[in-house]
Order: sequence, then C-alpha cells, then structure tokens
Amino acid sequence: MRFSDLISVLKTSDSQLLSYDLGSDPQLLKGASLDQAEKNQISFLEQGNSLASELLTSEAGAILLPANNELRLIAEQKQLAWAIVKDPRLAFAETLELLHPPKLPTKGIHPTAVISADVSIGNDVSIGANVSIGARSKIGAGSHIHPGVVIYEDVLIGEENEIHANSVIHPNTCTGKKCVINSNAVIGSEGFGFVPTTQGWRKMPQTGYVELEEGVEIGSCSTIDRPCVGKTKIGAGTKIDNLVQIGHGVKTGKSCALAAQVGIAGGAKLGDGVILAGQVGVANRAVVGDRAIASSKSGIHKDIPPGEVVSGFPAIPNRLWLRCSATFNKLPEIAKSLRDLKKELSL
Amino acid sequence: MRFSDLISVLKTSDSQLLSYDLGSDPQLLKGASLDQAEKNQISFLEQGNSLASELLTSEAGAILLPANNELRLIAEQKQLAWAIVKDPRLAFAETLELLHPPKLPTKGIHPTAVISADVSIGNDVSIGANVSIGARSKIGAGSHIHPGVVIYEDVLIGEENEIHANSVIHPNTCTGKKCVINSNAVIGSEGFGFVPTTQGWRKMPQTGYVELEEGVEIGSCSTIDRPCVGKTKIGAGTKIDNLVQIGHGVKTGKSCALAAQVGIAGGAKLGDGVILAGQVGVANRAVVGDRAIASSKSGIHKDIPPGEVVSGFPAIPNRLWLRCSATFNKLPEIAKSLRDLKKELSL
Amino acid sequence: MRFSDLISVLKTSDSQLLSYDLGSDPQLLKGASLDQAEKNQISFLEQGNSLASELLTSEAGAILLPANNELRLIAEQKQLAWAIVKDPRLAFAETLELLHPPKLPTKGIHPTAVISADVSIGNDVSIGANVSIGARSKIGAGSHIHPGVVIYEDVLIGEENEIHANSVIHPNTCTGKKCVINSNAVIGSEGFGFVPTTQGWRKMPQTGYVELEEGVEIGSCSTIDRPCVGKTKIGAGTKIDNLVQIGHGVKTGKSCALAAQVGIAGGAKLGDGVILAGQVGVANRAVVGDRAIASSKSGIHKDIPPGEVVSGFPAIPNRLWLRCSATFNKLPEIAKSLRDLKKELSL
Repeated sequence: MRFSDLISVLKTSDSQLLSYDLGSDPQLLKGASLDQAEKNQISFLEQGNSLASELLTSEAGAILLPANNELRLIAEQKQLAWAIVKDPRLAFAETLELLHPPKLPTKGIHPTAVISADVSIGNDVSIGANVSIGARSKIGAGSHIHPGVVIYEDVLIGEENEIHANSVIHPNTCTGKKCVINSNAVIGSEGFGFVPTTQGWRKMPQTGYVELEEGVEIGSCSTIDRPCVGKTKIGAGTKIDNLVQIGHGVKTGKSCALAAQVGIAGGAKLGDGVILAGQVGVANRAVVGDRAIASSKSGIHKDIPPGEVVSGFPAIPNRLWLRCSATFNKLPEIAKSLRDLKKELSL
Repeated sequence: MRFSDLISVLKTSDSQLLSYDLGSDPQLLKGASLDQAEKNQISFLEQGNSLASELLTSEAGAILLPANNELRLIAEQKQLAWAIVKDPRLAFAETLELLHPPKLPTKGIHPTAVISADVSIGNDVSIGANVSIGARSKIGAGSHIHPGVVIYEDVLIGEENEIHANSVIHPNTCTGKKCVINSNAVIGSEGFGFVPTTQGWRKMPQTGYVELEEGVEIGSCSTIDRPCVGKTKIGAGTKIDNLVQIGHGVKTGKSCALAAQVGIAGGAKLGDGVILAGQVGVANRAVVGDRAIASSKSGIHKDIPPGEVVSGFPAIPNRLWLRCSATFNKLPEIAKSLRDLKKELSL
Repeated sequence: MRFSDLISVLKTSDSQLLSYDLGSDPQLLKGASLDQAEKNQISFLEQGNSLASELLTSEAGAILLPANNELRLIAEQKQLAWAIVKDPRLAFAETLELLHPPKLPTKGIHPTAVISADVSIGNDVSIGANVSIGARSKIGAGSHIHPGVVIYEDVLIGEENEIHANSVIHPNTCTGKKCVINSNAVIGSEGFGFVPTTQGWRKMPQTGYVELEEGVEIGSCSTIDRPCVGKTKIGAGTKIDNLVQIGHGVKTGKSCALAAQVGIAGGAKLGDGVILAGQVGVANRAVVGDRAIASSKSGIHKDIPPGEVVSGFPAIPNRLWLRCSATFNKLPEIAKSLRDLKKELSL
C-alpha cells in the first residue's frame, strides 16, 4: 500500500493522527524495526525509545512518530514520509494489519476430519485435516479449527474462534466469541485433585468445566484445568501467553495479561486488568486485586490489594523489594561490619 | 440419586459414616461448593473450612459434615439431609463418583487409527480417531487411547490405562496398570544429554527408557525424559500435575505428588510420599527423603532428609526460611540501624 | 559388537585412546551405569566420578576410564576389558552410537498424510501417519516427519531434520540442516504482543518468523515465538531442553544450552556458548554475553558480561550470591545480635 492509504486509515483511528508529511508517498511492503528497515518498509518510534538515535541513519521509507519535535525535524530533513500520532504503537499495529491481512484457512470441512454425527457446525467454518470432534459439540459460525485439533464431546466453541493445530479441548468447555487457542494448548483437562488415604492418593472427580469469555487468547502449550465442581473462568479480553498453568477453579477478571510460564494454583482469583510477568506463581486461593502487577518470578502467597505492584518471593511491594534486594547483595559486608563492631566494643 | 442411596454406599466406605439424617431424602444431581449449591446439589465441609459460615444461608439440598456439633445443629435446624463422616473430603469424592460415573469411550478401534500389523491389543480397548501405534507395541486390556495419540514402536501400555488426546509415547516406554496420561504429555522423549567438544555439543545417545508403575498419573503437557542408560522410573501411585519436567534417569518413590511446573533435573531421586508444590526445582542427582515436602518455588540443591519441610532457594528448613524471609523484608532498616549505631559510636 | 571393534573406532576418535587391554574381548550388547552393568555391558568413569568406588564390585564386562592409575590397576586385577581415553564421556557417547544405531522410520509418505499439492519434498524423506503440510512448504532431503506433525504453509524444513510426533511448525519458519524438533514442541507461534487501549488489549500483528540454524535441537513442549517484525533466531548448534519458552524476537548465539523450563522474554539476546540452567528467566531485551552461565532459577534482569557466572534473583555474580545466600540463612541471628548490641549500649 501507499503511505497515503495508511494516512487515510489513521485519520479515523484511535491512535490519533496529529500531523504528517507524505514525502514521496512510498509504496510500503512490510513493517520493520528502525535499525533493520529498508526503503519499502515502515517503522515506528515511541517517546523514550532507545532506537531513536537510529532515525538519522535508518533506511526506512516511512516512520510513525510520537509528538516530538526533534524526531520530526530529523524526519523532515531526511524527506521521509512521516506521521505523528498520539499512540505510535497502536498506529503500528493498525499498519501491520493493513499490510498483512490475516490469511484465513479455506472454508469447509477437510475430508479427513472425524466429526460425530450430532455435532453442530455454524456457517463459514473451516475444519482442518485430521481434526476430531466429539458428540454433541458445537462450532460457532466463522470459526477456524486447524489440523490435528481434538475437541471432546459436549464442547461449545463460540463464533469466530481460531483454534490452532494439535490443541485439545475437553468436555463441557465453552468459549465466547473471538477466542484464540494456540497450538498444543489444553483446555478443560482435569484439575489436580486427590484425597490422601491410607492406600495413597484417591482421585477427586473433576466434574466442573472451563469457560473462556469473549476475546480470550490462550498461548501454545498452556493448560487450563477444570475444577471438582463449578467452573474455571477466564474473563473477557484476558490474554495468556505460552506454557501457563491455570489451576482448577481459578477465576480471572477481564483484560488481564499473564506472561509465559505463569502458574496459578487452584481457587485463586484475579481481578480485572491484572498483569503477571513471566514465571510468576500465585498460591491456592490467593486473591489478586484489580490492576495489580507482579514482576517476573514473583511468588504471590496471600491477597494483594488493587493497584499494588509486587515483586519477590514471597511477594512484597515492589519499592520495598527493590531496596531489600539491593541490601541483600551487601549482606556479607553487613554481617562483617556487625562482627567488627562487637569486637571493637569487646562484647 | 437419592441421598439414601448415597448413605447406603457411605455405610461401607473408608470415609467412616458416624451419623446422618435423611431429611426429605432429596434427589441429588450434582456436587457444588457450599456457596454455589442449589437444592438438588450436595456439598461438603471439612473441619476448619472457611466456608463454614455459609452453611446458614446455603441452599444445598444435602451436606457432608465433619464431626462438629455446631455444624450439625445448623443442618438440623435447616432440616437438611446431612451425614457426619470422619473424612468428608473422601466422602465427597465417593459422592461425585456416584453422580458422575466415568463416560468411557466406545470400545473398538476407529477406522482412521493407523496401527502397525504386529501391534498387540487386549480386550475391551478403545482406540480413537487418528491414533498412530508403532511396530511391536502392546496395548493392555481395558485401555482407552484418545484421538490423536502417537505411540511409537516397542511401547508397552498396561491394562486399564487412559491416554488422553495428542499425547506422545516414545519407544520402549512401559506403563503399569491404571495409569493416566493427560493430553499433550510426552513420555519417553530423549534426555537432554550432550557432551561438550571443541566442535560444540555432541549428543549422548539416550538409549534408556521410561517406566511408569501402577496408578501413575501424568499431567497435560508434562514431559518425562528417558536416560542415556537404564531407566527413568515413576513409582506406583505417584501423581504429576501439568507442565512438569522429569529429567533423564530420575527415580521417584511411591505416592509422590508433584504440582504444576515442577522441574526435576537428571538423576535426582525422590523417596516415597514426597510432595513438591508448584514451580519447585530439584537439582541434578539431589536425593529427597521419604515424605519430605517442598513449598512452592523452592530450589532443592542438595539432599533433603526424610520428613523435612523445606522452602526457599536454595531450599532450607521451612521454619528457618519463614523467619529469614520476614527479616529480609526489614533489611533496609537493619542496615540503617547498623549505620546509625556506628555513627553514634563515632567508629 | 566385540570390545575390539570398539577399540578400532576409538583409535581415530576425538576422545583420544591412550591405552587399552582387550581382556577376553567381550561381546557388548549395551551401555549401563557402573553400579547396574552386567557382563555384556560397558560402562565408563570420569575423573572424580562418585561411582569410582563401584569399580571393584561392578559386573560390567568392559569399562572406559580416565587416565587414572588406581582405576587402571583395579581394571587389570579384575581382568576387565578396559580402555583409557582422554575424554571417557565422549568415548561412551561414541560407544552407544555404535551399539544403538539410530532406527530411522521407513522412507516414503504415509497414505494418511495430508500434503498440499505445491509442497516440495526432497529425496529420502519419511512422512508419518496423519501428518499435515500446508501450501508452498518444503521438506529437505533426508528429513523425518513423525506422525501427527502439523506444518503450516510457507515453512522451509532443512535437510536431515527430525521432527517428532505432534509438534507444530507455524508459517514462514525455516530450519537449517540436521535440526531436531521434539514431540509437541511449537515453533513459530505468534509472539505475545498486545497494545493497551481503552477497550482492552489489542493484538499487535506478529508478522515475523522463526529461524533455527543448523544443528539446533528443541525440546518437547517447548515454544519458540515469532516476533512482530523481523525474526526470532536460534544460533547454530544451540540445544534447548523441554518446556522452554523463547519469546518474540529473541536471538541466541551458537552452541548455547538452555535447560528445561527456561523462559526468555521478548527481544533478549544471548551470545555464543551461553548456558542457562533449569527454570532460569531472562527479562525483555537483556543481553547475555558469550559463554556466560546462569545457575538454576536465576532471574536475569539486566545485561550480563561475557564469561560471567550468575545466580539468584535478580541475578548477581555467583560467588557473591553464594556468600549472600549463606548470610541470608543467618538473618534472624544477625537481627537479634544487632538488637542485643543496641540494648547493651542502652541506645
């Protein structure tokens, strides 16, 4: 597309176009980072971005900029095509969507798919090779089921879902509209519930189910367990990265973001907008308030108030943790200093 | 079922029925937590359960209680159907089994399954769509192989196993009776063994195999590696949650419980009844004694004596760790206090 | 094979044969650890190996030894077949390769594989049951694609790759020669990139791809994400264990080794020969220098210089961390000692 085509779109976008110069109105083929971009490529900078110094030497054909006069002057001197927007990252997302419209699989059901006779399939669905769908399941209109997916019986897949290859959906799972389940994820597997007896562990039947609300995305090789009774629920718009474990009966609010290798133990509750960085753990039944944030590798053992930023293990407020960690690195000195002091005082 | 049907079963159960009142002998359709239960649903309480206060307002039709007169009085006042048992959690597990008898897949071999000519298949086996089974493997009587499972050659699956969708079993793996392998798990993959050479890493052939003893359960997306020589062995009745890594040559005892995202490095040994909470790591060749417990995120670097409860990283006895962690949060104060003291003494 | 056959091979091997005695030139069937070995089995010892004391009582038929006179004398007294080599571990790897030549799948395409018409397939390829390969993908000569693998469109698989069962390769991924992708791994899945908006998280299109250079190996259930723009690159000869997450746009150097459950966040860079032990995390955009090593569970938050050995969270130099950790375990004593001192001085 031409840069001018992009400008037409940005004029009505939430990214808020503030000013622009079409330059030579270059033909754009793809996006690239500023240090890698070539002449038919477009890049972006955010306020404070460490790549800003690359703008002078970049060969990008076009650039999306924040409201920053210095950057604008460089772009003008280089006679680049440029646009200043309030949210360059959002504008870049829109740009990439225009450059790379999603390639949808061919509609229809591949002849090798094995689908129970009583499965209900909406309009405009694609079902790939070697998919298996169990009795009484329903696939909402416009959904794409990639090759090798196994959907057990009594599953409800909402409209416009995308379910990637070789993922597995267990009985009674239901998903809202526009969910994405990435490759090799497992949804609705039985929770890890066992009763200790004198003869060893006895399985607690896991009779509940998993609900993904609208717009939920689940990463590759992530696992969402169903509970003993009731449901495990992932709130609308929540995004979950790869290799994440969601235990039985967990409830998350809306628009949470859980990075890779997070583990949430059974019965824990997250509010809306919670952000958990990589490898964070949340203990059984802990309650994490709305918009709380945990930095990577935190271990949350007890309730966290809304808006709190926590770190460490057990997790404490981030500011305190930063100071404690800094002091931890001086522990040998502190211990020696105390010993010396006692010696000097002959105590 | 009627509550009276349940009472008949509990009379001979290990959960030890102590007393009961049939009330209106309600029809029970499913189990539920006390705060969610409706009138055709049954719930349970354990001694000290935080939901006990909900009993007064619960709409559950029936309840399993511990030996607690206060709870009993409330149940009597509400004219609930109730039973007092020594182990309410076990009784609830039995109740759910009665309410939800396992739905077994249809026996027989799906026509799309690809099975080598010399595979041996026991009686009453079900093999789902698109399963692949390699040469010389054996499937024990009464086992269920769900769709998409790949069993390589020379695998021995015991009797009454359940192997969930899209999991993969590598050559020479053998499983005991009544094992469960959950979806997308990988059993018998090659251990991570490489020899450093001047030309880079050279693979150490992994010629061993994995043995799961009777009653072992492996979680979704968990991986159990085979060793260079000998075997990796998971002891009878051991339960392993999702996304767990078991390295090459690990041996676990009987009735261990390993929570999600635990990682056990090559050659480590766990005794009987070891419990590892979520995200625990065990280092190469470490030996963890019988009935030792590690709390979540612990890092076990050296041998742990039997019965010990450990925490932290590197793991130390839990009681010590609790005190050290509490002091860690006061490190900035401690450092300041020491500085002030030295200043005051003009040292 | 006979021990003498092995000696013939070792004579030209990099493991550097120094001396040997054929003994009774035993027939060797397999390798075993010294404490498990039987008479038709061969074992090895390295300098300082804790199993050395087992040599006296071992029933192994043959043994590979380091240059150690004491061990040699024992082997001679026992009239074992023995060889002294400079690198016994490497020699043992060669021995196992001779005893267990890789069993390659039958060449050819299984009739149940679903392969787009425009896929290009090299010579001597095997493609297993229920494999799915998308449009325009290419499979290099001598590669083995095991059952259930899903390869999306526009994928380039190099020569002599082995791709294990049920793994998934997303569009535009390319792999070098002799790569190994283990079971249920996911390569080229979309990076976890979302833009915060007032309506929640908006997906940043992930238009990049993943490149695995020659000789890369990826563990079971590991996930390698593609980036928004550009590529995620795993350098030649790098070995990645199970359940590892590689975020969008990560670059690793050559011959790195990443143990199980490592997580590397988006944009991080590893130099050549970096070793990360189990459950290590590397933060967004961190740069880890050549040959740096991180011990298990480390959390790398900032750049690490070449050759550094780090531990802890946040990661600090290993030697410092060992001293700090040791002092951490004495924190309650230190705090008490300080309190007592102040009391005694009546401050």
